Amino acid sequence: MKHRIITISREFGSGGRTIGKEVARQLEIPCYDEEITNRIAKKSGLAEEYIKESGEYAASASKIGSLLAVKDFYGHSIQDELWGIQRRTILEIAREHPCVIVGRCADYILKEKADLLKVFIHASIEKRAERIVKVYGENDVAPEKRLMQKDKKRRAYYQLYTDEKWGNIDNYHISLDSGILGIEKCIKIISSLY
Amino acid sequence: MKHRIITISREFGSGGRTIGKEVARQLEIPCYDEEITNRIAKKSGLAEEYIKESGEYAASASKIGSLLAVKDFYGHSIQDELWGIQRRTILEIAREHPCVIVGRCADYILKEKADLLKVFIHASIEKRAERIVKVYGENDVAPEKRLMQKDKKRRAYYQLYTDEKWGNIDNYHISLDSGILGIEKCIKIISSLY
Repeated sequence: MKHRIITISREFGSGGRTIGKEVARQLEIPCYDEEITNRIAKKSGLAEEYIKESGEYAASASKIGSLLAVKDFYGHSIQDELWGIQRRTILEIAREHPCVIVGRCADYILKEKADLLKVFIHASIEKRAERIVKVYGENDVAPEKRLMQKDKKRRAYYQLYTDEKWGNIDNYHISLDSGILGIEKCIKIISSLY
Repeated sequence: MKHRIITISREFGSGGRTIGKEVARQLEIPCYDEEITNRIAKKSGLAEEYIKESGEYAASASKIGSLLAVKDFYGHSIQDELWGIQRRTILEIAREHPCVIVGRCADYILKEKADLLKVFIHASIEKRAERIVKVYGENDVAPEKRLMQKDKKRRAYYQLYTDEKWGNIDNYHISLDSGILGIEKCIKIISSLY
């Protein structure tokens, strides 16, 4: 039997993770976000910090980022290896029980493998900038720039491993502007669809 | 005071018009779809049939279609003229009362002019093909081809007059896959957001 699974894709700073966690709590099913990182770390021996950064984002132009994307003799990089482990981990979770999975191309990986409700959460740049300053605090880089960099890398990662366009409206069963509708309303709508 | 207005953009065959009409009925506000055509016909003297075809779709490659897109000495075509009348009509309606408006770039025209809830309704090609055969019957052209042609012209029309991309996820407060969620559920969600 295919388990019913909610996948939440989200623009950085849109509150998608918060929404996923709360939907899962209300539906009394697990939410996988950092928990995927833990599982992958155990399987792969890779550091959690690295998995968190590279399991959803295309390699950055930094020195470490470039090294991790270096291809071996067979055209395989550490990031490709991580993609394989992440894919298997998500398939494993989907076989275990109904749940919410945040990000990590789960919508693509579980296509045809589970009874999916595919959600996309987005918001205007202004609303998201406001939110990331509130949640993560300020740093040297302007919040607008930070979120555009993050989204750019998520988009590139998704495209690289799925060959599909991240944030393409036709790919989601429901897309919500959390900045306009509010986090609470998004949670309510998604829960009601489960 | 800005009136609260729901704009419904939709892929052809997704049931967006049916959803709009039913949301309006439940909320006891008017729904503008063919009613806009009537108003424009009265103002412009253009035939309703032509307005229906050209108020949302880029000019076709047919002989009549090409003629209507011909530019005059000032670089203006009949289609441009129609766009102007349609724009003014939609602004006029928005000043009159809260309502639902289906299609016709109302989301763009009313930006900043009304308190908008911008909705996009879509569905897979298979589901929409099934629906248009049920609603409009069969003809010589395969339903998949008919709906792709319609969407292509809607996309081109939107792009031409708004300079924005039709069906861009960030432009809508809520986007729903009517093929997966069902028409009834879409109506319920949209009404609950009003």
